[in-house]
Amino acid sequence: MSYRIGFLGPKATFTHLAVSKFFHEQIEQIPYATIPACMDAVAVGDVDFSIVPLENAIEGSVNLTVDYLVHEQPLHIVGELVVPINQHFMVHPDRESSWQQVDKIVSHSHAIAQCHRYLHNEFPLAEHSYAASTGAAAQFVSTHPGENAGVIANEMAAEVYGLSIVKRDIHDYHYNHTLFAILHPSASEKPPTLPGYEGKDKTTIMVTLPSNQSGTLHQVLSAFAWRKLNMSKIESRPMKTGLGNYFFLIDLEHAMDSVLIPGAVNELEALGCGVKVLGSYKAFYA
Amino acid sequence: MSYRIGFLGPKATFTHLAVSKFFHEQIEQIPYATIPACMDAVAVGDVDFSIVPLENAIEGSVNLTVDYLVHEQPLHIVGELVVPINQHFMVHPDRESSWQQVDKIVSHSHAIAQCHRYLHNEFPLAEHSYAASTGAAAQFVSTHPGENAGVIANEMAAEVYGLSIVKRDIHDYHYNHTLFAILHPSASEKPPTLPGYEGKDKTTIMVTLPSNQSGTLHQVLSAFAWRKLNMSKIESRPMKTGLGNYFFLIDLEHAMDSVLIPGAVNELEALGCGVKVLGSYKAFYA
Repeated sequence: MSYRIGFLGPKATFTHLAVSKFFHEQIEQIPYATIPACMDAVAVGDVDFSIVPLENAIEGSVNLTVDYLVHEQPLHIVGELVVPINQHFMVHPDRESSWQQVDKIVSHSHAIAQCHRYLHNEFPLAEHSYAASTGAAAQFVSTHPGENAGVIANEMAAEVYGLSIVKRDIHDYHYNHTLFAILHPSASEKPPTLPGYEGKDKTTIMVTLPSNQSGTLHQVLSAFAWRKLNMSKIESRPMKTGLGNYFFLIDLEHAMDSVLIPGAVNELEALGCGVKVLGSYKAFYA
Repeated sequence: MSYRIGFLGPKATFTHLAVSKFFHEQIEQIPYATIPACMDAVAVGDVDFSIVPLENAIEGSVNLTVDYLVHEQPLHIVGELVVPINQHFMVHPDRESSWQQVDKIVSHSHAIAQCHRYLHNEFPLAEHSYAASTGAAAQFVSTHPGENAGVIANEMAAEVYGLSIVKRDIHDYHYNHTLFAILHPSASEKPPTLPGYEGKDKTTIMVTLPSNQSGTLHQVLSAFAWRKLNMSKIESRPMKTGLGNYFFLIDLEHAMDSVLIPGAVNELEALGCGVKVLGSYKAFYA
């Protein structure tokens, strides 16, 4: 069976790299220019699944994805792809011999942040120009040979847009991975099988507190802790209703069951918390 | 006495607006092009204090400030300025009558995110171009009248760079404030007095956990909760050492004392946590 999979484009973004790495030829791949457009596409049925970046080990959550999921387009996470991120420095082939003289660096803001120290040391005076994705940055420099610019992007981008990699692995921290969420309107939908990958159980829960008291968050964590439901992540994001109002995203290293997680959720609701299970799914590691 | 205050420039950024609102004429204001440059300036003594954005009510923490503070330049927070953020849409005066036809929106990524819904409805096809600050975006459009572009920035930017405001208050959420941190190398340094402002006590603490167990974070919160030390914020950020490794920033609505906060810190250290008080200071509300 062939699936249509939407991803954050253009071609050769890290999302595209993740999709290609896991799915090989069994699917049709459709790029979308922005994260919201990609998420809207699966909501209206233009694609079977959408894949967008969710969290990077260095830069943290991709706020646009999290906020759009929580406030605008309530999809479910039905799977997760985890891939290592290697950032390379590349230029238009015409500039291969003079790459150390570029006066502008083009990339996604996360990629520039991930190479902050390298850029600070090697190109202290270069201007930074932010693109919507590393793929879009590579596309821009490929079609603007007049710009004296370098790009930070992945190997696939160099191939697709015909750029020359002049320095490999310029990211500051070696342990750099990104999580990509597989999204679908229905919580019970299963993504295409990935032969050869086993997957780890994970459940993502969003919790809003009834008040800003430290006591309540403490109670929330108690509900998981005494059941030995191990959290692999807790992250706060503003509610957009005022400074100091947060919601929390909590990842549990457990599949949804019929006793423990529902019991914790019921307890939290009885405390006055808002609770929403964003998904219970498998995380696959490349 | 006159102080030299460094801020995230160029002229007319929201940081500049905050500095001007609180300090009037008593200080010399020195713009820096980036957050790290601004923080380095106070570390080496080029300025007496540096002021940079720390957290926005809509978009959350300014990751670059938090990460640079934690990983690169260990300054102390000695005060905080809180100002409402109003985003306006402006264009080069030559385009005042045809502003609805712009095909490009230039601004800081947070400002674009804060006006996401407005832009999606009014300029669905316009390209987004990201600048280092709203001030830099306004400066760019002011000096590039050939670009068919609109800018999202504040009132001060329209004045300073001679742009025409064509639509006011285009931010999606009305309760929009930003916190700006006043930074200094010494924790005991007091910022210039602000006559007419009272200020609220606040202490910011960074905590790293000894392991990724939900139990430990639960214990950390217990140490504050049973002492009735109220948290106004808890936020997680990746440690940059791997997916799932976080540090936590905790704001307490209390001034540093000699018993309760030191007692909690000692307990956390005994549990194996790393604890660092980033500052105990007054937060001033415009």
